[in-house]
Amino acid sequence: MTITITAFERSPDGGKGLARDTRVRWALEEVGQPYEVRLVSFKAMKEPAHLALHPFGQIPTYEEGDLGLFETGAIVLHIAQHHAGLLPDDANARARAITWMFAALSTVEPPILELANARLFERDKPWSAQRMPLVEERVRNPLGQLSRRLGGADWLDGAFSAGDLMMVSVLLRLKASGLLDEYPDLAAYVARGEARPAYKRAFAAQLAVNNPAAG
Amino acid sequence: MTITITAFERSPDGGKGLARDTRVRWALEEVGQPYEVRLVSFKAMKEPAHLALHPFGQIPTYEEGDLGLFETGAIVLHIAQHHAGLLPDDANARARAITWMFAALSTVEPPILELANARLFERDKPWSAQRMPLVEERVRNPLGQLSRRLGGADWLDGAFSAGDLMMVSVLLRLKASGLLDEYPDLAAYVARGEARPAYKRAFAAQLAVNNPAAG
Repeated sequence: MTITITAFERSPDGGKGLARDTRVRWALEEVGQPYEVRLVSFKAMKEPAHLALHPFGQIPTYEEGDLGLFETGAIVLHIAQHHAGLLPDDANARARAITWMFAALSTVEPPILELANARLFERDKPWSAQRMPLVEERVRNPLGQLSRRLGGADWLDGAFSAGDLMMVSVLLRLKASGLLDEYPDLAAYVARGEARPAYKRAFAAQLAVNNPAAG
Repeated sequence: MTITITAFERSPDGGKGLARDTRVRWALEEVGQPYEVRLVSFKAMKEPAHLALHPFGQIPTYEEGDLGLFETGAIVLHIAQHHAGLLPDDANARARAITWMFAALSTVEPPILELANARLFERDKPWSAQRMPLVEERVRNPLGQLSRRLGGADWLDGAFSAGDLMMVSVLLRLKASGLLDEYPDLAAYVARGEARPAYKRAFAAQLAVNNPAAG
């Protein structure tokens, strides 16, 4: 059955790979599954046809036969559970890899989203400069803890897994802020993720949509 | 094998059921699995023994034989995948229920956490009053979309599932803010969750720890 995902017709990041379809493309590349992409405009994302697939009017979505999914985490987990390459075979190791997916999305990403909100939507507010250190400190807390847990290993728990895919994807959002460089081991961890051939193919595919001249 | 979870020795909410161990207790009650609880002080949560189990120094954790998990979402998913009662049998319906778990944690909860940060840690800042409407609007966006999708149904996708368990748990955090009452259908959805016998047992169990006199 053909897998079809949705992506921005024009990503707000202009092709830096931060839109969430990159995470799904990366997962599909890791497991070697071909996929098609349907591009969606900002206008179409809020219309009934797309809302029927994604109640929050976002991308990516995932369609395969009768199945329609939204939420990047759920889509990556679905791919990882149905194709070899993103989860270990051992049941306990598998549960731990899934734990790192949730840690990326529910513990590490929320303060990063708060930082993005502060930078994107509150930059011109009178409190912006004074508040920013507070918001950055909320991001540093989990980064310091993550760095201690990684402890110089290549990946979070044994071989590369869907947990690393999600954690690297979340940390990638911090590159422009300079915060990632405060943790050289985490910056190296992210670079290891970016160096994977599957990531490179996913990145190139989204870049071809958003900035064809750069491809 | 005995299941052991961790919970706050004294929950910051004094027993209102908002600490995340309530979500895990609820899942275990829904599937009828007995469990033991190890209480952890704020001090012990940051010490090496607990950090080995939970790298971010939080509760809850989940131990069963050789398996040690953290992250509420991962723990609830693990319980739901290993015991009947929280996920449908049909593979597609199962994937959709898991999608709602991720939607609760990665789409609906992050702006609620930002609101909690604003109320808890920025209440005395000079920008607090002026900024609050902005933060509340970020919470309303997904609530409006969730309300439209629910469309008067009892649960998000057919029978009650782990997706509803997580969504109700996330929305419960909004009760004190008054925001939930702006969406009477979502308030009723949360009330349906709270009315489940398994939720009531979970709530009572955490209350017995945090406010024994109220029990």
